Amino acid sequence: MKFSIERAVLVKAVSQAQSVVERRNTIPILANVLIEATPDGVSFRATDLDTEVVDRAPAQVERPGATTVSAVMLNEIARKLPDGALVQITSDDASGRLNVQAGRSNFNLATLPREDFPVMASTEYSANFSAPAKVLRRLFDKSKFAISTEETRYYLNGVYMHVASSEDGPVLRCVATDGHRLARIDAPLPGGADDMPGVIVPRKTVAELRKLLDDDEADIAVSVSETKIRFATPTITLTSKVIDGTFPDYSRVIPANNTRQLEVDATDFARAVDRVATVSSERSRAVKLALDADRLILSVNAPDAGAAEEELIVAYADEALEIGFNAKYLQEIASQVDRDNAVFLFNGSGDAALIREGSDTSAVYVVMPMRV
Amino acid sequence: MKFSIERAVLVKAVSQAQSVVERRNTIPILANVLIEATPDGVSFRATDLDTEVVDRAPAQVERPGATTVSAVMLNEIARKLPDGALVQITSDDASGRLNVQAGRSNFNLATLPREDFPVMASTEYSANFSAPAKVLRRLFDKSKFAISTEETRYYLNGVYMHVASSEDGPVLRCVATDGHRLARIDAPLPGGADDMPGVIVPRKTVAELRKLLDDDEADIAVSVSETKIRFATPTITLTSKVIDGTFPDYSRVIPANNTRQLEVDATDFARAVDRVATVSSERSRAVKLALDADRLILSVNAPDAGAAEEELIVAYADEALEIGFNAKYLQEIASQVDRDNAVFLFNGSGDAALIREGSDTSAVYVVMPMRV
Repeated sequence: MKFSIERAVLVKAVSQAQSVVERRNTIPILANVLIEATPDGVSFRATDLDTEVVDRAPAQVERPGATTVSAVMLNEIARKLPDGALVQITSDDASGRLNVQAGRSNFNLATLPREDFPVMASTEYSANFSAPAKVLRRLFDKSKFAISTEETRYYLNGVYMHVASSEDGPVLRCVATDGHRLARIDAPLPGGADDMPGVIVPRKTVAELRKLLDDDEADIAVSVSETKIRFATPTITLTSKVIDGTFPDYSRVIPANNTRQLEVDATDFARAVDRVATVSSERSRAVKLALDADRLILSVNAPDAGAAEEELIVAYADEALEIGFNAKYLQEIASQVDRDNAVFLFNGSGDAALIREGSDTSAVYVVMPMRV
Repeated sequence: MKFSIERAVLVKAVSQAQSVVERRNTIPILANVLIEATPDGVSFRATDLDTEVVDRAPAQVERPGATTVSAVMLNEIARKLPDGALVQITSDDASGRLNVQAGRSNFNLATLPREDFPVMASTEYSANFSAPAKVLRRLFDKSKFAISTEETRYYLNGVYMHVASSEDGPVLRCVATDGHRLARIDAPLPGGADDMPGVIVPRKTVAELRKLLDDDEADIAVSVSETKIRFATPTITLTSKVIDGTFPDYSRVIPANNTRQLEVDATDFARAVDRVATVSSERSRAVKLALDADRLILSVNAPDAGAAEEELIVAYADEALEIGFNAKYLQEIASQVDRDNAVFLFNGSGDAALIREGSDTSAVYVVMPMRV
């Protein structure tokens, strides 16, 4: 194998690939990236056995071939080479070393045989569709904060992507919850996605996917089977196993009969919650919301450290209500709200609250109350 | 106590004070800041018993007084208040609480009695002088990287500041070493510093001091005794115990007879060392320097991972030489060099090397070799 590649192109391709590589590996070859050079260009492939990413990059290939080399080391070398350098990469099959050369720098890296690299088995995908990057970005960005980190509830360790029916017809829906709060985000159903099986996309895949979604104009090819999901741009393919479990029936968690409505500026609300929570050093800081005619008083009481209170002018015309929440959950939800106004719908002080962005029902959040 | 203070002024004063506070304290009051309001303004004092900082700030004092309150909490509250807010601070002696109020935000914080706050005993200083902030900045910035972190060699856990004689006459000198490398930085001796006792300024004090030295035009009042050192600007006073120990005689570590001279671009050199060191994942990465007529080859050999080599065009007219160093030490020293050219003076491959900034002898570094 022998090819030359621009340093900037190499940096981009290798950094995307190596981010899938786990830092601690019991299987040595999983620390490596598989480099494959064909007359069309070069690809860099990395995997943790659950997630695989392939980055294709243009290169001048003199001699096709393939080998594997430490992903972290190749990434660091590429980063440290001078801007604008042309990098020569040559594998020496006799010595089993990979030579990386640029200007007066010369590296000889240990390799492992390409045959040992675990390439993910191909799957028959039952649904293939295309979705704008910014639609997928919204679906995952607004739901991922609610993913559970409890490993025993493995079926909550991802975002449940599925087809659902909303008031406005069928939608592509992402739901995440950790039992304390829930996010439900809808987007118009892309053509060809009707038969898509519902899948739980793991947290790590959601994070890796984010790197494919930065370009507002891009379209992402999505393929889904019962066991796998694949996201592809013209240069990057991210394939992931989905979580083998059943996502709970979230619909019964979403309150349908909450009628007491609070409207509040989302930014002011998030900042006020952050401020009053300062006096509590506990992990689960409980903040109390006391609602009365057009007035919201946020308060925190931490007997040892002190107390804090803040008043906000809001729109509220229902019966007075006192209800407590985890301050962190309130802040996280409020920071998802893109519009000025967050709408809270309450029932009693022991019931879950529903939060919307204005009158838009395509992004809905639920948070359980805390006793205060 | 009752006063009002601008939020920006409060943030600045409290953040500087609270950085001295240790995060874990067995003595509760050490987590607090002592607030003292007098008709002239307000001061914020924090201590870890070895270092004390006092920040004075303008405020409209309605009722003088003093109390202590959690430094971290007051700092967080001040930071989170809206820009431009006027903050009312009132201590309620009956309830033992401190009230912090701004706009519609209201905080009641637990206090501890001011009488319990350990104020550092005052000392007779045997030398008092004034030095420009940028002179002190150079002395400490260029030497602190070499401070030892080995707690057993406590007398190396700081910068040794003392009066010394150089070729150009008496100087104010800062020296730090960890036994592997050494930095010796000189500045013209300020008037009044002649009788200053040599003191070892602890690492933490060096870090805190840095915040007083940002203003290029400022003059810092320095007071030194056998046991303490004090740095003061018109608004901040930093007092610290010095390390009770004897700094070793560093002069015999500085090679006087190294004659083989290498001149190299400091930035190119540091980058090349960084690149070749990539192939070694060990903590103490040894890099080999092979010198020949106007040519320097840097190389690292890590049998498991690979090898790296880079050639630099340099000025070198002496006998060929091969010598090894810890890559991190070389990089740190090279990054101290302000001028384009670093000058290395070598003797044999088993001898310490001396590094200078061009022909300037007011900043001198020594690094011990490693077997490669």
